[in-house]
Amino acid sequence: MSDIVFRSDVTTELVRSAAHDSDVVFAARVSTQGSTSLAAATTEASDRDQGLIRFLMRDRHGSPFEHNSFTFFVEAPIFVFRELMRHRMASYNEESGRYRELRPIFYVPARERRLVQKGKPGAYEFHEGTEEQFEIVDAEVRARSEEAYASYQRMLEAGVAREVARTVLPLNLYSSAYVTVNARSLMNVISLRTKHEGAAFPSFPQREIEMVAELMEKHFAEAMPMTHAAFDVNGRIAP
Amino acid sequence: MSDIVFRSDVTTELVRSAAHDSDVVFAARVSTQGSTSLAAATTEASDRDQGLIRFLMRDRHGSPFEHNSFTFFVEAPIFVFRELMRHRMASYNEESGRYRELRPIFYVPARERRLVQKGKPGAYEFHEGTEEQFEIVDAEVRARSEEAYASYQRMLEAGVAREVARTVLPLNLYSSAYVTVNARSLMNVISLRTKHEGAAFPSFPQREIEMVAELMEKHFAEAMPMTHAAFDVNGRIAP
Amino acid sequence: MSDIVFRSDVTTELVRSAAHDSDVVFAARVSTQGSTSLAAATTEASDRDQGLIRFLMRDRHGSPFEHNSFTFFVEAPIFVFRELMRHRMASYNEESGRYRELRPIFYVPARERRLVQKGKPGAYEFHEGTEEQFEIVDAEVRARSEEAYASYQRMLEAGVAREVARTVLPLNLYSSAYVTVNARSLMNVISLRTKHEGAAFPSFPQREIEMVAELMEKHFAEAMPMTHAAFDVNGRIAP
Amino acid sequence: MSDIVFRSDVTTELVRSAAHDSDVVFAARVSTQGSTSLAAATTEASDRDQGLIRFLMRDRHGSPFEHNSFTFFVEAPIFVFRELMRHRMASYNEESGRYRELRPIFYVPARERRLVQKGKPGAYEFHEGTEEQFEIVDAEVRARSEEAYASYQRMLEAGVAREVARTVLPLNLYSSAYVTVNARSLMNVISLRTKHEGAAFPSFPQREIEMVAELMEKHFAEAMPMTHAAFDVNGRIAP
Repeated sequence: MSDIVFRSDVTTELVRSAAHDSDVVFAARVSTQGSTSLAAATTEASDRDQGLIRFLMRDRHGSPFEHNSFTFFVEAPIFVFRELMRHRMASYNEESGRYRELRPIFYVPARERRLVQKGKPGAYEFHEGTEEQFEIVDAEVRARSEEAYASYQRMLEAGVAREVARTVLPLNLYSSAYVTVNARSLMNVISLRTKHEGAAFPSFPQREIEMVAELMEKHFAEAMPMTHAAFDVNGRIAP
Repeated sequence: MSDIVFRSDVTTELVRSAAHDSDVVFAARVSTQGSTSLAAATTEASDRDQGLIRFLMRDRHGSPFEHNSFTFFVEAPIFVFRELMRHRMASYNEESGRYRELRPIFYVPARERRLVQKGKPGAYEFHEGTEEQFEIVDAEVRARSEEAYASYQRMLEAGVAREVARTVLPLNLYSSAYVTVNARSLMNVISLRTKHEGAAFPSFPQREIEMVAELMEKHFAEAMPMTHAAFDVNGRIAP
Repeated sequence: MSDIVFRSDVTTELVRSAAHDSDVVFAARVSTQGSTSLAAATTEASDRDQGLIRFLMRDRHGSPFEHNSFTFFVEAPIFVFRELMRHRMASYNEESGRYRELRPIFYVPARERRLVQKGKPGAYEFHEGTEEQFEIVDAEVRARSEEAYASYQRMLEAGVAREVARTVLPLNLYSSAYVTVNARSLMNVISLRTKHEGAAFPSFPQREIEMVAELMEKHFAEAMPMTHAAFDVNGRIAP
Repeated sequence: MSDIVFRSDVTTELVRSAAHDSDVVFAARVSTQGSTSLAAATTEASDRDQGLIRFLMRDRHGSPFEHNSFTFFVEAPIFVFRELMRHRMASYNEESGRYRELRPIFYVPARERRLVQKGKPGAYEFHEGTEEQFEIVDAEVRARSEEAYASYQRMLEAGVAREVARTVLPLNLYSSAYVTVNARSLMNVISLRTKHEGAAFPSFPQREIEMVAELMEKHFAEAMPMTHAAFDVNGRIAP
C-alpha cells in the first residue's frame, strides 16, 4: 500500500494565544486595587510583578492564572488523544471518523523510544530496547497498520458506513484536534504529563503524550515567561 | 487464537445511585422555604411535587437536578469510550492498557446493526446492510482483531512494554470504566446520545454509544421516574 | 458623609477578546477536514461559513463555540455578583473586602427601575412604582448605605479587621471583578440573564444583572456577529 | 424589633452521603483489574486498601476520589456564601431573596472571634480584640442589622419588590443552601478554607468559612476515614 505514512513524531502547533504575564497581574491586583488594576491590563509585566506571580504560584492562588487562553492544533496517535481528553478543563474539537474517511497515517516508535518497562503500576521506568525488540515492534506495527487500513478500504468500497469500518483501525492511527486551555489548566496538563526532576510529586507519563506536553510547555514558556518560571521553581504543580 | 471473545453488546451496570425525585424537590424548595425544605429530603416525592419538577424542567432551572449521583460500570469498545469521555461533566476511571495486559475481547457488529449510511455529516441515516456487506464486515473485523491480538502477544513475549505493544490494538477492543454523573449531566448525555422522535433537536449518535445511553436512561427512569418523565415530555433537553 | 457615591448603572468593559466567527469555523471543520481546517484559522468567516455556524447552533453542536475567550471588567452591586458567580463555566477575580478598604460606592435604583413585582416565583413581571414608592426606596437605600459605611469606618478606626467590619455593609455596595468566558458559556449567561421575546424558554432576570448581560451581549455581537445572529434566531439558547 | 435573631455559629448538616473508602478502591482497581474491581464496590475497605489510598493521595491520582457524593445543608452569613460559591466544582441551591421574604437572622461575632488582623494581604494573622473593640463591633453590627431589617420591612410594606428591598440588607444576614460535592472537590474546599499546621501550603481563611469547612471535614472523616487520614498525612492537598 503505497500511500501509507508512518510518523514517529507529534505536532503541537500554537494556533493562537491571548496570554501574557500581565494578565496574571491585573487579575491578582483587582483584589487589592479594584478598578485601578485595569492599568496592568495594558502594560507589560515588570520585575516587581514577578514577585507577585511567584507568590501566587507558591501559595496556590490559582484563579489569576485563568484569564488567558491558548489554542493548539495537535496531531498525535489516538492512544495519545485518549489520555489527553481525560483533562476536562479544556475545549476539544477533533477530526471525526464518522464524518470523513480517515487518512492512512500511523505512528511507529522511533529507534530512540525506550521499549522496556520496569517497576510496578504507577511508577514505571523505561529502558532501551534491544535491536531485536525494536525490529519486532517496527515490523508488527507496520504490518498491522497496513492490514488494518486495507481492511478499512475494503469495507468502504463495499459500501459500509465509515463509523463501522473504522473500528478495525488501530490505536496508533493519527488524529488531529484543536485544544483550547487557559494557563492554569495547561500547567495541570504539563504537571501530570511530563516527567521532571524538579517536580514536587512524580509523574510517569507515556512518552508520546509527554512529547505533546513538552511542546505545549515550550509555547507556554514563550508566551508567559514569568509564569512559566514560577511554575518551574515551585515544584511544577498547577496552582 | 482460541481464547478471543467477540461480543456485539455493551454492559452498563448501575453500581450505585443516590438519586431520588425528592432530591430535586428539596433543592428547588430551598429557594422559597430555606431550612423548611429539609423535610422534603426525607419524604418521597408526591404528585404535587411532580408539577414542580415539570416546571423546573420546562423553564430550564437546571441546578436542582444536580444533588444526586449515579455510578455506572460500563464495558464497551474503545470507539464508544472515545465519544463518552468527551462529556466533561462526569468522573471516569478506566481500565489501563499501561498497567495491565488487555484481554482479547472485541466488538463485532450483530446482524441487525445497520451498516449503510446515507445523508450528510451531522444528519446521517442508517439502513440495513446486505448479507454480503454483513459478511465482509464480520470477516474483516474478526481477522483484524485476531491478528492484532496475536501481534500484541508477540510483542509482550519479546519483553516490549504494554503501552507500546497495545498501540496495534484496534478501536473495537473492549475497555471498562466507572462513570459517575448527576442527573443533569446524565440527561445531557442521553439527549445527545440517543435518537428520539420526541426530541426538540435532532441527535445522530453512533448506534453503539446509543446502546450505552439507552441502558443509562433505563436506570435513570427507575431511580427518578418523575424527573425522567418530565425530561421526556419536554423535548428531552437537559435543563 | 461627603464622599459617598451613589450610582444606578453598571460597568461591563471588554478588557480583551480573542474571539472571531472564524474560530467557530476552524473548530467545526476539523471534524471533516483535519489539518486542512487550519486555513480557516487565519481567514475571515465568509457567507458560506454563516450557514455552518447556523447549523451548529440549531442542532446544538456546542464545542466549536469554545475556542475563543472574552475578558470583561465588571463593576456592579454585590447582589449582582452573587448571581453572576453562580455561573461556574467562567473565571473570576474580584476585589477583596479582606485585602483592602472598600470604597463607599452604592447602588440606588434609577427613577425608571420598575419597583413592583407581580406574579409568582419563577415568573415575575415588573411594573412601574409610584412616585411615593420611588421616594421611599431612594431614602431608605441612601440612609442605610450611609449609616453602614459610617459604621464600617468606625470599626476600622477602632482597629477592627476589615473582614469583620465589612459584614455590616449592604448588598448594594459596588464590587469589581474580571470575568473570563468563552462564547458558549457567555451565551448561557445571556440566555438566562436577559428577558427576550424571541427566547425559546422564558427568563426572568433581576434587572440589574440583565444590565450586565446586555452589555456583554453587545460586546459579543461586535466580536462574533455571525455567531450572535445565529444565537438570536435560534431561540437564544446556548448550544 | 423583637423578632430579630443574632447567631454566632454556622450550620453544616450532612443531608446525605454516598461515600465510602471502598469507592476509592474500586475506582482505582479498575485500571489494573477491569471488571474484577466490581467486587470492591460491595466490600468494606481493608487495611491493604489503605495502602492503595495513601499511594493515590501521595502521588496525586485524583480521579478515584470522585465516585462519591456528599450533600450538605449550610446556614451561614452571606459573606461566607460569597466565598463558598467561588468553588465551582460543586452544586448549589440557595434560598432566594427574590422568591421569598428573608428572615431576620444576622451574624454577630462571638466574644472569642479574633478581631484584629496583622500582616499583609494573603498572609494575615489574627489576634484577640480588646473588650472595647468587641463592644464596638457588637453594637455596630446589632444596630446596622436592626435598622436594615426595619428598612427592608418598610419597603415591603410599601409594596416594593423583594429583590429591590433586600439590597439594603447587610452581608451578615444568614442564608441557607444545599451544597453537593464529591470527596476530591471537598478536599479542595477543606484545603483552602482551613488553616492547619500540617498543611503543605498555607491557607488564611476567614474564620467564619473555616467554621463551615471544619464541620464538612468532620463529616468527611466519618464517612471516609482512610481517605481523610491519607489527606491529613499528605499535607492536606486535594489530589
